[in-house]
Amino acid sequence: MASRDHGEPVDARSVPPQVAEVAEPVRRPSAAEEARTIVASTNTATLATLTAAGDPWASFVTYGLLDGAPVLCVSNLAEHGRNLAADPRASLAIVASSEDPDPQAWARVTLAGVAEQPAGDEASAAREAHLAAVPAAEHYIDFSDFTLWLLRVHRVRWYGGYGRMDHATGEAYAAARPDPVRPRAAAAIAHLNKDHADSLCAMARTLGGHPDATAATCTGVDRYGLDLSVTTARGNAHTRVGFATPIDSADDLRSATVELAQRARISR
Amino acid sequence: MASRDHGEPVDARSVPPQVAEVAEPVRRPSAAEEARTIVASTNTATLATLTAAGDPWASFVTYGLLDGAPVLCVSNLAEHGRNLAADPRASLAIVASSEDPDPQAWARVTLAGVAEQPAGDEASAAREAHLAAVPAAEHYIDFSDFTLWLLRVHRVRWYGGYGRMDHATGEAYAAARPDPVRPRAAAAIAHLNKDHADSLCAMARTLGGHPDATAATCTGVDRYGLDLSVTTARGNAHTRVGFATPIDSADDLRSATVELAQRARISR
Repeated sequence: MASRDHGEPVDARSVPPQVAEVAEPVRRPSAAEEARTIVASTNTATLATLTAAGDPWASFVTYGLLDGAPVLCVSNLAEHGRNLAADPRASLAIVASSEDPDPQAWARVTLAGVAEQPAGDEASAAREAHLAAVPAAEHYIDFSDFTLWLLRVHRVRWYGGYGRMDHATGEAYAAARPDPVRPRAAAAIAHLNKDHADSLCAMARTLGGHPDATAATCTGVDRYGLDLSVTTARGNAHTRVGFATPIDSADDLRSATVELAQRARISR
Repeated sequence: MASRDHGEPVDARSVPPQVAEVAEPVRRPSAAEEARTIVASTNTATLATLTAAGDPWASFVTYGLLDGAPVLCVSNLAEHGRNLAADPRASLAIVASSEDPDPQAWARVTLAGVAEQPAGDEASAAREAHLAAVPAAEHYIDFSDFTLWLLRVHRVRWYGGYGRMDHATGEAYAAARPDPVRPRAAAAIAHLNKDHADSLCAMARTLGGHPDATAATCTGVDRYGLDLSVTTARGNAHTRVGFATPIDSADDLRSATVELAQRARISR
């Protein structure tokens, strides 16, 4: 699913291939799921709108989410408010927070579509959605110069960092859901690497296609499985091991990981 | 200089006015200076470009600075790279990092103009400027699909948080310089509030127009002076006290503040 737009200078040549067959390909979150996960992770974005002259205009905004559709609350007196009122075409860029010192490694997404003023029940739902994500908006959301805008997402571009990127349709984005595990991923990864190095190595050996692994560290967690960085005498490799079934709640992460560790040891 | 685009719900009515005359109005950084300071404070932004259909497209970018002009390094294969090649009109939104939990209080800026591919000496200077700000770009800056773009800034919109906002021209932006004090402002504010509460209160009383101040805390530092939050029996107020001369180096902040404290006590 993920594609590379251009040659990647970081990973070239030296990555050893899997030498044992992996039982079945381990599912990854789709671009639509990755996008929903990033969008659900924060409440700030940059909006691109069109000025009266048709020039692009980038401006900081806050947002809530109504079934994945960003809900903005902007002043009609501000330039982006005037822009939306005159031409509702809009795009939002959202960046997931990251500890990585290289900003190009940060996961981010662009949503493009058309902004609409919600009406009726949707207007009250949009208002609640914005307030839930941006509590300080209570101070201005009911001012007469502020308008709620719902971004109808028509297309999505997801970047997962170097070499990981893909498109998604508005329909796929709307149908996807945020990964329930991702908000706890950093803590889970730290715990696995600190206390369960042996299990991770066993997973890499028996489930991850590297029977000669001497060590493995977890680099990612999502509802479908774990990403592993694997040390072998042939070099350092990356692999992925899958949970028995996708996780629907972060509360199930521990049991799913225990099952994965047990399966890895039995397979040995 | 700063204007209010709409009524501000937070501060209404209860702010007591200055009751003593202030010697002379204390200079504030201009919108152009505020913008240069925000832009100099980070290396990540969101770019707004135009798609082939003329739609706005928001995307995350990194940047360096050449005399205040942002230098981007983007792949021609990425959507924003194709957009710039077809139509160089562009805008950048940049947000200053902040500890404030309310995102609308964060200082931010929009720069709008036209992107150009620098040539000759400017091309090498732009390359160095980008690498200085984004060291990881060494891995891809020389790839054939990457292009340097210099944003010629034509106009600037600065937001300093609630109720503080203004425009600046491209010329004013180019002529301004980043505030040398701002990178150390947080530490200076913490130090003043922890160890020099008496001096701050004296400043509010004798220089800040509130002779009945019972306490004052510093809320902002820039090259021209200090912002103070003042407690009086009449209510809480805000005022500003100015350094004897604008500071040109963060190293001069301590001596300028000491002079201000001495002047406040002498005036008593």
